[in-house]
Amino acid sequence: MRFLAALAMALGLTTALRADEVTTTTLDNGLEVVVIEDHRAPAAVHMLWYRAGSADEPPSSSGVAHFLEHLLFKGTETIDAGEFSDIVAAQGGSDNAFTSYDYTAYFQRVAADRLPLMMRMEADRMNNLRLTEEDIATERGVILEERNQRVENSPGALAREQMRAAQYLNHRYGVPIIGWKHEMEQLGMEDALDFYDLYYSPNNAVLVVAGDVHPDEVIALARETYGPIPREPDLPERVRPQEPPQTAERRLVYEDPRVSQPYLTRSYIAPERDSGAQEKAAALTYLAELLGGSPFTSALGVALQFDSQTAVYTSAYYNGRSLDDTTFGLTVVPEQGVTLQKAEDAMDAAIADFLETGIEADRMERLHTQLRASEVYARDDVQGLARRYGAALTQGLTVGDVQAWPETLQSVTEEDILTVAREVLDRDRSVTAWVVPSREVLQ
Amino acid sequence: MRFLAALAMALGLTTALRADEVTTTTLDNGLEVVVIEDHRAPAAVHMLWYRAGSADEPPSSSGVAHFLEHLLFKGTETIDAGEFSDIVAAQGGSDNAFTSYDYTAYFQRVAADRLPLMMRMEADRMNNLRLTEEDIATERGVILEERNQRVENSPGALAREQMRAAQYLNHRYGVPIIGWKHEMEQLGMEDALDFYDLYYSPNNAVLVVAGDVHPDEVIALARETYGPIPREPDLPERVRPQEPPQTAERRLVYEDPRVSQPYLTRSYIAPERDSGAQEKAAALTYLAELLGGSPFTSALGVALQFDSQTAVYTSAYYNGRSLDDTTFGLTVVPEQGVTLQKAEDAMDAAIADFLETGIEADRMERLHTQLRASEVYARDDVQGLARRYGAALTQGLTVGDVQAWPETLQSVTEEDILTVAREVLDRDRSVTAWVVPSREVLQ
Repeated sequence: MRFLAALAMALGLTTALRADEVTTTTLDNGLEVVVIEDHRAPAAVHMLWYRAGSADEPPSSSGVAHFLEHLLFKGTETIDAGEFSDIVAAQGGSDNAFTSYDYTAYFQRVAADRLPLMMRMEADRMNNLRLTEEDIATERGVILEERNQRVENSPGALAREQMRAAQYLNHRYGVPIIGWKHEMEQLGMEDALDFYDLYYSPNNAVLVVAGDVHPDEVIALARETYGPIPREPDLPERVRPQEPPQTAERRLVYEDPRVSQPYLTRSYIAPERDSGAQEKAAALTYLAELLGGSPFTSALGVALQFDSQTAVYTSAYYNGRSLDDTTFGLTVVPEQGVTLQKAEDAMDAAIADFLETGIEADRMERLHTQLRASEVYARDDVQGLARRYGAALTQGLTVGDVQAWPETLQSVTEEDILTVAREVLDRDRSVTAWVVPSREVLQ
Repeated sequence: MRFLAALAMALGLTTALRADEVTTTTLDNGLEVVVIEDHRAPAAVHMLWYRAGSADEPPSSSGVAHFLEHLLFKGTETIDAGEFSDIVAAQGGSDNAFTSYDYTAYFQRVAADRLPLMMRMEADRMNNLRLTEEDIATERGVILEERNQRVENSPGALAREQMRAAQYLNHRYGVPIIGWKHEMEQLGMEDALDFYDLYYSPNNAVLVVAGDVHPDEVIALARETYGPIPREPDLPERVRPQEPPQTAERRLVYEDPRVSQPYLTRSYIAPERDSGAQEKAAALTYLAELLGGSPFTSALGVALQFDSQTAVYTSAYYNGRSLDDTTFGLTVVPEQGVTLQKAEDAMDAAIADFLETGIEADRMERLHTQLRASEVYARDDVQGLARRYGAALTQGLTVGDVQAWPETLQSVTEEDILTVAREVLDRDRSVTAWVVPSREVLQ
C-alpha cells in the first residue's frame, strides 16, 4: 500500500484526472470514428469494432460471430486467403481480432504512415469478403479444435459454461461465445454470410484510431476509404431478450475426474455500466476489491485464508462493461480437508460480516488511490485505451461515459458500496457451483 | 387391480387393438387434413392446429403465440370482434383454443351439419384477421391479468418457471408459454402480425375433423374453404436450438411466504417420442407409473408414504409428446417434521432400490393391461382422439406413429424400462427445486 501511495504522489494524482484527447465524428453512412491522439511513439493502432457479438447471433447458430471473425482472414476480391496478416507483418506490424458477447473487433498496430493501407484493407473486408465452401469447412474445423482445447479439455471452462447457462434464464449471455459444440458443427456458409451481410456494415461499426495521428487526417482518410460503403438499411434495433426476475437460488455440482482440486464459485446477476448511470457499477468495482482483491486485505482473503485457514485461494470478480446485465463472481478453493460446504459457509459468513462491519475510512481512501492509479496506468497504454473506447461504444456507453468513469470511481462512498452489495449479493439471483473430481468428496 | 383385469376381459382387450378410422390427405396449398370417423353421435369436432407454439417465438417476444391465440377472437373482414364464439354458441356448439410450446390450436364442437360454417369461419380468420390498436391494448391487459392469476399468484407456478429456465440451457422450452411479464408488457401489433403472417398459413397447419362425418365430404369441403388460401413461401424450416450436453446437476431454492407446505421437485431432461422411434418414450411412460403412479404400488409411494412415512405425497410425471427434448419429473411432499434433505435422500434411495430390484413380472403384466385399457378408453373420447392426432402431427409425429403407439406401449419390457431409467435418471441432467415458505425451514 505504501508503494501505491508513494506512486500516487509522484504522479501528481491529487490533481484532477486529465481527459483523454479524443475526437469523434460520424460519417454519412453511419460509421462512428474515434481518434485518440498520443504522439509519444510514431505508431498507430487501427481498430474496427462491430456492434455484433455472440449475444446478437440468431438462435441455433451459436459460435457464428466467432466463426466469422476467423473467416474475415480469408480472401476478398483483391486479397488472397491468409494474405491479410502477412501484409500487416511485412509492414512490421501485428494484427489480431477478438469476439465477445457484445462485439467483434479487428485491430492492427503499425507504423503511423501505414495507416492508409490498414484502412483500405479493413474497409475492403467489411464489404468484399469472398468465401469458398472449402474456407467454411476448414475454418469450422479450426474453431471446433479451438473449442476442444479451450473448453472440452478444461473442466473449469466446462463448469463455467453450465453455470452461465443456469445464470441467464432468458438472455443469450447464457450461451458460450465460442458456441455450443453441436451448433458449431452445423455452421455453414449461409449462417456466416447472413451475419456478415447484416452486421458488418458501417452503421453498425466503430472505427478507433489511436497513436501518432492527427484527427483531421484520420477522419478525411476514413471518409475516403470507409465512406463509400453503403449503410445497411435493414439493421435491426439492438434489443436482446432481457432477464425476468430471478427468484430462485441455483446450485450446480460439476463432477469431472480431471479436476485436481475441488473449488466453489458463485455468480450473481449484477447491473452493468449504463450510459449516464455508472454509479452502481463503480461501487461494484470497489466491492470486488473489498471482497476478493488481495488475500492480505480483502474480506474473503483475511477471513478464509488467514484467520481461519479455510481456503488456499479466494477471489472476487466484476467487470461492468457489458451491454446488458452482467455478473459479480466469487471463487473459493478450500484448504485440504475442508469440505466445500464448510468453505461456502465461511464465505457467506465473511460476506455477512463485511456487510455488518462496513468499511474503514482509510481502507476506502487507499482504494480510491489504488483505482485512481490504475486509471492513470491505463492511459499510458495507447492500445488499451483504444480498446477501452471501442468496447465502451459497442456496449452502450458514450465517449463521455468513458471519460466520466475515473471520477465516478472516485466519488464512490462506503454507503454506495454497502447499498449495492445488499442489492446484488442476493442468493435468489445467484448460481453456486461446486466443481469436484467426484461426488465422493461431498460425503 | 382386479377391476382393471375384469374390465380388460369385458372389452376383449386380449385381441389386437383396432386401428382408428383415420383418413388423411394434403391439399395443394400444403394444408394437412385428418378425418376421424365416429358415427356414434351426430356431432363433429373441427380443429385447426398450427405448427407454431411458444417455442417458435422470436427472441424477446415471449408470450406472442398465446397473445395471438386471444387476438384470433377479434374481428375479420366479415365477423366482428367477439362474434366468433357467439356464432358457435348460437348453433348450440362450444369452442375454445389452446397454446402450447409446439402448437396453437382452435376447436369447435358442433352438430355435424354445422361443419361447413365452422370451416368458413376458421378459414376466414387464418387469413383475414383485422386488428385495431385498441384490440392489442385490451388483449395485452387480458393476458397480463391471466399471468397474474395463473403465475404471479401461484408460488408453485413461479417455482416451475425458474426450474424450467434452469432445466433448458439453450432451448426455448425454458421460456414460459404465457411469456415473461416484462416481455409481455412490450408485445404490440407488429409482434402479433409478424407471427400471424408467417405461421398462420395452410402449409403450417393441420386440420382435424372428427365425428359423424364422411372423409370424402370433409376433404371436398376443406378444399373449397381452405384451398384458396395461398401457401406461405417464406415459412422457415422448423429447427429450434437444441440442448448442449447437460453436465452439471442444478439445484434451486424457491422461497415464497405463500408456500403452505414445503416440497421438493426434480426434473430430468428426457427423450420425447420421435417419429419411428417411440420405444424410449414408451418405456418412460411405464417408469412414471412405476415410480410415482399410485401411492399403493409405486416405488416412491410405497417407500416414502407407507414404509417410512417420510412423505404425504409422491408423484412422477412424463409426457412424451413434444417436438424436442422433454422432461421427466418427480415430486415429494414430506411429512410434517421431515426435512427436505431427508425426503430427498429417501427419494434417491427409493430410486436406487428400484433400479437394483427391478420389476416383478406380475407388476409388468398389470401395467400392460392398465395402459392398454387407458388406450381403449381414450378411443372412446372422439374429442380427445382428435386432439391426440392434432398434437402428434404438430409435434413431429405421423398418423402411423399415433397408431403404432398402443402396440409400442405393449411391447415394453422390464429391461427397456431399467435401461431408459439408468439413462434418464442422471442427476447431471436434472434440476431439483426445494420450494419453501422461508429458508428457515432448511435449518
